[in-house]
Amino acid sequence: MKESNSIVHEIFSKKLSFTQEEISFIEQKYERVLFEKGTIILRANEHVKYQYFVSEGCLRTYLIAKSGKEHTIQFAIKDWWISDYIGYFSQSKSVLNIECIEHAVLYKISRNDMEEIYTKIPKTESYIRKKLERSFVSFQKRILANLSQSAKERYLNFTQDYPNIEQYVKNYHIASYLGITTESLSRIRKEIAKSSS
Amino acid sequence: MKESNSIVHEIFSKKLSFTQEEISFIEQKYERVLFEKGTIILRANEHVKYQYFVSEGCLRTYLIAKSGKEHTIQFAIKDWWISDYIGYFSQSKSVLNIECIEHAVLYKISRNDMEEIYTKIPKTESYIRKKLERSFVSFQKRILANLSQSAKERYLNFTQDYPNIEQYVKNYHIASYLGITTESLSRIRKEIAKSSS
Repeated sequence: MKESNSIVHEIFSKKLSFTQEEISFIEQKYERVLFEKGTIILRANEHVKYQYFVSEGCLRTYLIAKSGKEHTIQFAIKDWWISDYIGYFSQSKSVLNIECIEHAVLYKISRNDMEEIYTKIPKTESYIRKKLERSFVSFQKRILANLSQSAKERYLNFTQDYPNIEQYVKNYHIASYLGITTESLSRIRKEIAKSSS
Repeated sequence: MKESNSIVHEIFSKKLSFTQEEISFIEQKYERVLFEKGTIILRANEHVKYQYFVSEGCLRTYLIAKSGKEHTIQFAIKDWWISDYIGYFSQSKSVLNIECIEHAVLYKISRNDMEEIYTKIPKTESYIRKKLERSFVSFQKRILANLSQSAKERYLNFTQDYPNIEQYVKNYHIASYLGITTESLSRIRKEIAKSSS
């Protein structure tokens, strides 16, 4: 029972209180899944059934352009959500791939099950709506940064948004997230190291 | 009374039913504002107090990059919402400007007032949460399209997403939305006209 309780409080705020009945209801809807490092848990053009809450691990979504070039769209670490949201929210097929960069422990849930939780326990909807607003803000910030900031500024923002992530991800992941080459990334890191030494 | 009722049903779905008390509560929170064509209703680096529901008119948000180049981020026509969402949701200063491309009739609301409506009338939160999901999807679609589609494909998507908008907006608005020059836009239009004639 103690462990179950902690799943609900891991996903929703510790500030929210739930009855034992609510906890059981939420638990039934989420499924705990484990993936090995390197697993692709969703591929482009597949039906998007789930979104995933990250309990442990590091994942990324990426787009493969027609040219074959990879664009990393999002990283997700502990306490973040990840999915192909176009497919998940609009019930269409995925355009993104999701890769486990590290061994991952996730809680997956379907859109219908999520809607049932919102209906039965409205405080969860309010909590998730605020999270969604923050996701929208952080995604929009990133896009505007791409239009208005230098690669160096974007890299510094990245290290703030994803502290300690650099130990897990490869250089080409970061470069493809920032929209630069791995050579440019090395140059930027050297510049920063030089100016802070 | 009839007109008041229609404001609430203009903003929220006609499928939602409201008591007279709920209608009065919502009406008090929104303020109807009129702006002349060409008015800049928000400038970069200002405090973002409101989001706006478009009852009439056509608006756009745009970013001015350090280079001086304008990037159009969003257009809004009847029934759309517009704001600098980074500022509105995260209580920070605006990075975007909002311009009325046409004479506009808007309903404005502060974030606190919106939260009060959600708390008092939870069905509004559920409705807006779904709208927010759709906004997130449409914004993400656009960004992925920029990475993976040709300018011509993006232009065709734009004409689908904003039907009939071309009569209101200038060519440089569309070009700065698509991330291309006005010359490229003319070329694309000619190509499409040729292939459909």
